[in-house]
Amino acid sequence: MGIQDQLRELKRGIVDIISEEELVAKLKKGRPLKVKVGFDPTAPDIHLGHTVVLQKMRQFQDAGHEVICLIGDFTGMIGDPSGRSSTRPPLTRQEVLENAKTYQEQVKKILDPDRTTMAYNSQWMDNMVVSDFIKLTSVQTVARMLERDDFKKRFQQQHPISIHEFLYPFIQGYDSVALEADVELGGTDQIFNLLIGRDIQKVYGQEQQVVMTLPLLEGTDGVLKMSKSYNNYVGVDDAPSDMFGKVMSISDDLMWKYYELLSSRSLDEIQDLREQVLKGAVHPMDAKMALAREMVERFHGAHDAEFANESFTRVFKEKAVPQDMPEVTLALERPWICSVLKDASLVKSTSEAKRLVAQGAVSIDDEKVSDPEQVLDSGAYIIKVGKRRFAKVTIREQ
Amino acid sequence: MGIQDQLRELKRGIVDIISEEELVAKLKKGRPLKVKVGFDPTAPDIHLGHTVVLQKMRQFQDAGHEVICLIGDFTGMIGDPSGRSSTRPPLTRQEVLENAKTYQEQVKKILDPDRTTMAYNSQWMDNMVVSDFIKLTSVQTVARMLERDDFKKRFQQQHPISIHEFLYPFIQGYDSVALEADVELGGTDQIFNLLIGRDIQKVYGQEQQVVMTLPLLEGTDGVLKMSKSYNNYVGVDDAPSDMFGKVMSISDDLMWKYYELLSSRSLDEIQDLREQVLKGAVHPMDAKMALAREMVERFHGAHDAEFANESFTRVFKEKAVPQDMPEVTLALERPWICSVLKDASLVKSTSEAKRLVAQGAVSIDDEKVSDPEQVLDSGAYIIKVGKRRFAKVTIREQ
Repeated sequence: MGIQDQLRELKRGIVDIISEEELVAKLKKGRPLKVKVGFDPTAPDIHLGHTVVLQKMRQFQDAGHEVICLIGDFTGMIGDPSGRSSTRPPLTRQEVLENAKTYQEQVKKILDPDRTTMAYNSQWMDNMVVSDFIKLTSVQTVARMLERDDFKKRFQQQHPISIHEFLYPFIQGYDSVALEADVELGGTDQIFNLLIGRDIQKVYGQEQQVVMTLPLLEGTDGVLKMSKSYNNYVGVDDAPSDMFGKVMSISDDLMWKYYELLSSRSLDEIQDLREQVLKGAVHPMDAKMALAREMVERFHGAHDAEFANESFTRVFKEKAVPQDMPEVTLALERPWICSVLKDASLVKSTSEAKRLVAQGAVSIDDEKVSDPEQVLDSGAYIIKVGKRRFAKVTIREQ
Repeated sequence: MGIQDQLRELKRGIVDIISEEELVAKLKKGRPLKVKVGFDPTAPDIHLGHTVVLQKMRQFQDAGHEVICLIGDFTGMIGDPSGRSSTRPPLTRQEVLENAKTYQEQVKKILDPDRTTMAYNSQWMDNMVVSDFIKLTSVQTVARMLERDDFKKRFQQQHPISIHEFLYPFIQGYDSVALEADVELGGTDQIFNLLIGRDIQKVYGQEQQVVMTLPLLEGTDGVLKMSKSYNNYVGVDDAPSDMFGKVMSISDDLMWKYYELLSSRSLDEIQDLREQVLKGAVHPMDAKMALAREMVERFHGAHDAEFANESFTRVFKEKAVPQDMPEVTLALERPWICSVLKDASLVKSTSEAKRLVAQGAVSIDDEKVSDPEQVLDSGAYIIKVGKRRFAKVTIREQ
């Protein structure tokens, strides 16, 4: 692959690149580059938002480069010693290794195992002496540190920032020295830490890594970043039909961003598809189904993808579910089907709802509701009442 | 000695004590307390300002306690890795040891060697692992750190503060853990660092040290803190007559502060002397001479003190130097005697000065000036012109 062709795919979807000239110079060397990505060992179950960076790693692999999944086990085992954050308990070595194994299982669905290395920063951090560590920290000033978005906000709002939190970026930076990284990838929120790696490599006389940031993927709501806590995520372990349905629930606009950041199709193929849709030659729903199918196939295999595709088609196409049905998000203490129907404005009262359920006129995701006392789990459903009333109802977790 | 009597001398001159209740509780245990004081290994030549804390250490020793001179060699050998401060080059182990030896020579003039331990923090810091160090730093927040006077000022003035500067106080704090310090002494500007020691001891399950701060001693000018850079210092290695003369040059007010902070006389003795002076029974100059003599005797021995006292008496008392002569401080590019006389308003012109020198009418510190081209060194002099014109002239270093 020529350098310009490589560069086009490697820059695909990228927000920042520091610097393109340096990346070109590194590519020109003709040797495989070492592409580093850091993983937090505390949260091994990942969603499509996390796979944006994996997809970029895969593009590097396809261009002949090596990727390194750096597990931050050294800091993971420290946790938050100030005890302020209950979400960061220290992990044992055993837990770190188990989480890393889960990562490995998940990433191999996207990455080429032959060009993937797992690395653990405890390997060098356990042996570092304190004086060397202190020297690392001298490359940065307090003021610059407080310019970092999250620290800035907390400092202004007078929320405590423990000193040790200022130190973790230097470990991440030194990891680049230990790995002799040529490139480091991360989310846009990581740019400050990624740049510290450059500073520290310079001190150690290494060529500085190229820093490339990827956008934070919006969740299925198209507004907030994908996150478990917003319940707008597509987990890579979601059941095939769930995954398919969630991808189908995104807007047509967001679909193209998902294509750019998640699909293995080349930019040219995507551009071509987009033109077909614009011309009316391909229905946007079909384009979206192709994306949903690609995602399910990636994480569950071709068979499950085919099945999910078929059942979706059966429910939504053959039964002519309208594309513009109302969408409602509910947060009910007890999502009883009859309350749901009423709150989604599909019926006027719970007694009307009961009657319609008894008549067999209510279905959820194309399954008839038979029990008028049914309570729904959280999740997204297409609810149909009679022949013409539809709503896409999302039940939020309480 | 009873606890109340001990306490009275131990609190003498103290600015902060955190807390007195804790100190009393520790004293009641009846065992020798470990009293820690940190020394900067970069600046071994000390002046009277530095001896304020040594005097306090001596008072602890006299009450039966042990003192530990903690040489901060671990940080001394790191220096300022950001390279921003040219005044803190990293020291070699050899230099640290040499400087420590100088300290030892100097402190033994005040301290009881049998109750004095020299300790080096590289002893434990060299072996500390980075993860333990990171945990130490979690006891403090960025906001609290930036409340420290020096950091606050630099932050507000947008002068860079390197992250490693934030880390040094934690080392000082951990030193207290390693030494199991009962008390730590320091200047008032050190209070923040001293208190971190308490935080860290708490984390390690130790009884917290009592923190006591001592005032920064004003220099001979009575205004600025004693410092080499202000040229208002009395060095412990100053020649006997210089030392004597410098102490004699302080104001009567400042003399009582010097008595409180530097003299080995008890508070009762000092109070008694002060009353004698107030009543007119003792001349303030005699009280000051007793102080000057005590200082010279401490650093040079009884013989030199006697000699310095005698020569001072001869010059200033027998020749009836007025006590209220004008004082002038000059900063001349070339302190030519005739310029000095003119600028000190002792003559109207340099030609008048030349003439008077030629007539043998000018003397400096009771020595006749014979060469009208003489150039003075920096220092303080009593200059006399004719029989009645006197001035105390201080020539500042350029």
